[in-house]
Amino acid sequence: MDSIVNAAEKAKEHGIDISKLPKNLNMTHDTITQNVKAMNANCKDERMKIIFDSLIGHLHDFVRETSLTTEEWMTAINFLTETGHKCTDLRQEFILLSDVLGVSILVDSVNNTKPPQATEGTVLGPFFTEDAHDVENGDSIASEGKGDYMYVEGRVLDVQGNPVPDAVIDTWETDGHGLYDTQYDKRDGPDCRGRLRSADDGSFAFRAVVPVSYPIPSDGPVGRMVSALGRHVFRPAHLHIQITAPGFETVTTSLFFEGDPYLTSDVVFGVKSSLIVKPEIIEDPTLSKSRGFKDANKPHAYVKRDFVLSTPDEASRARELLARKK
Amino acid sequence: MDSIVNAAEKAKEHGIDISKLPKNLNMTHDTITQNVKAMNANCKDERMKIIFDSLIGHLHDFVRETSLTTEEWMTAINFLTETGHKCTDLRQEFILLSDVLGVSILVDSVNNTKPPQATEGTVLGPFFTEDAHDVENGDSIASEGKGDYMYVEGRVLDVQGNPVPDAVIDTWETDGHGLYDTQYDKRDGPDCRGRLRSADDGSFAFRAVVPVSYPIPSDGPVGRMVSALGRHVFRPAHLHIQITAPGFETVTTSLFFEGDPYLTSDVVFGVKSSLIVKPEIIEDPTLSKSRGFKDANKPHAYVKRDFVLSTPDEASRARELLARKK
Repeated sequence: MDSIVNAAEKAKEHGIDISKLPKNLNMTHDTITQNVKAMNANCKDERMKIIFDSLIGHLHDFVRETSLTTEEWMTAINFLTETGHKCTDLRQEFILLSDVLGVSILVDSVNNTKPPQATEGTVLGPFFTEDAHDVENGDSIASEGKGDYMYVEGRVLDVQGNPVPDAVIDTWETDGHGLYDTQYDKRDGPDCRGRLRSADDGSFAFRAVVPVSYPIPSDGPVGRMVSALGRHVFRPAHLHIQITAPGFETVTTSLFFEGDPYLTSDVVFGVKSSLIVKPEIIEDPTLSKSRGFKDANKPHAYVKRDFVLSTPDEASRARELLARKK
Repeated sequence: MDSIVNAAEKAKEHGIDISKLPKNLNMTHDTITQNVKAMNANCKDERMKIIFDSLIGHLHDFVRETSLTTEEWMTAINFLTETGHKCTDLRQEFILLSDVLGVSILVDSVNNTKPPQATEGTVLGPFFTEDAHDVENGDSIASEGKGDYMYVEGRVLDVQGNPVPDAVIDTWETDGHGLYDTQYDKRDGPDCRGRLRSADDGSFAFRAVVPVSYPIPSDGPVGRMVSALGRHVFRPAHLHIQITAPGFETVTTSLFFEGDPYLTSDVVFGVKSSLIVKPEIIEDPTLSKSRGFKDANKPHAYVKRDFVLSTPDEASRARELLARKK
């Protein structure tokens, strides 16, 4: 009876220390969750143990709360498998899943929460590139003909209201077709994106185009899930802004536009009320000309907005406060 | 300013009814969870809405409770992607993930809970096949030389203790090397598996081999995760049994063996205390011969075990009771 008698011997051959395995577990369907946690008790990575204890508790509560059927579980397995198969070097369907379930924006909030006076952040998204051109204050980030004109100006400030000079402002957006430059098969170079620096008084200004709402990729399992949930697949129009300055936390944010029909139903939940601006429509050729627009007879949207940066200390206090609230 | 003024018009072109979108949401990082749920409120599938409300609540609570970092989130995205890429027609890494997190056994419990008198179920596993041979009571399900001898007998009963005749008993197991017949490159036909029927008094008996503990596939992301959690990858030895009889719920279960070192640390949490049997080692050539073993001088393990079936009504009452406990 080698197979029964020597099982413990064999475990040793596999490098398993029997004495460290859980013992005397009450193994019934009532005790499954505590048994799984007990099994992970030997994990040497304390942070990993915390994460898996929480994950297992919530996964199991989800199954119990919904009395999930075997068929529904199999649907989930097939969905995850298809989502995995859709991922390539160029497409990340799991990030999209995280986005449309509000997980990405929540992770962003947990990690990048700032004090109430500072500008709120939102998701970076997949369209930032490193190759944007440097532009001078007042210059354009978009080449002529890419969309309706827009002029953006404001100041970079600290939470006490002092100007932050020489802050690096990265900004990027869709053109008038709702497409980023990287989404065109033929990309001659960066467009509708640029990098500028705040002046001594913290001020900045640039010409751009009015960005346009656009759909997330909807031809995969996540798009089908969103549709089955009775939702549309659009993001409201937005202008991305990322501001970096020595001694301050980087803020990754966006401006959204009052009147956009998707403001309260952004498919990835990126909109925060504090980030909505009301553009003014300027139909004054003299002003248009002074702001450098080529066709001064065309109207332009005017956006004025300050950005407030927090120091690492200020931001870390805000995050601790959030973590305590849980 | 076509882009700003006509955004609502364009939404209509995309078939989106603006009037049905959420309005007046308080969009801050405190309200993300309720905003995601509000977005799913138009879902026409009530069951899907219940499932996603629960899923989103638990996913978000998990992120908040652990203050999940952006790096940890990205690790999770990469892990899920790799798990998806590991899935093929022959390998299901997401089911394996569900197994080692105790989700599969919990789903099994939620769906297959029986009244306390009835035999508890456990996971079906991936090794059941439809092509097992029919064997007569007392015959062998394993060909000679596949492992240590084992003799299994018992009765199929209802919860009142009455015999259930003509129940179909499917049984399958590893050989003495810890491998199912389907795991060999060359499979001549079914082995270490068989189908028999209970007699008029509910009794059954068959010869088999002593099954052996074995590892789950450990060369993928799930295996690496299990190791990082400080766990081994073994299942304790077990004999699968599935019993079907007209008028009763099918029970899918297994027998485990007292003394197995992995009983309290089954990598997929399939063991229930009520399913552990203590095999008797028989070294009586006369008895071995009468039970039909070819080499009567070899010892055999003897397992006696009754199986108790519940009716659909009895089982459904047990599941309702469980759902109310949640």
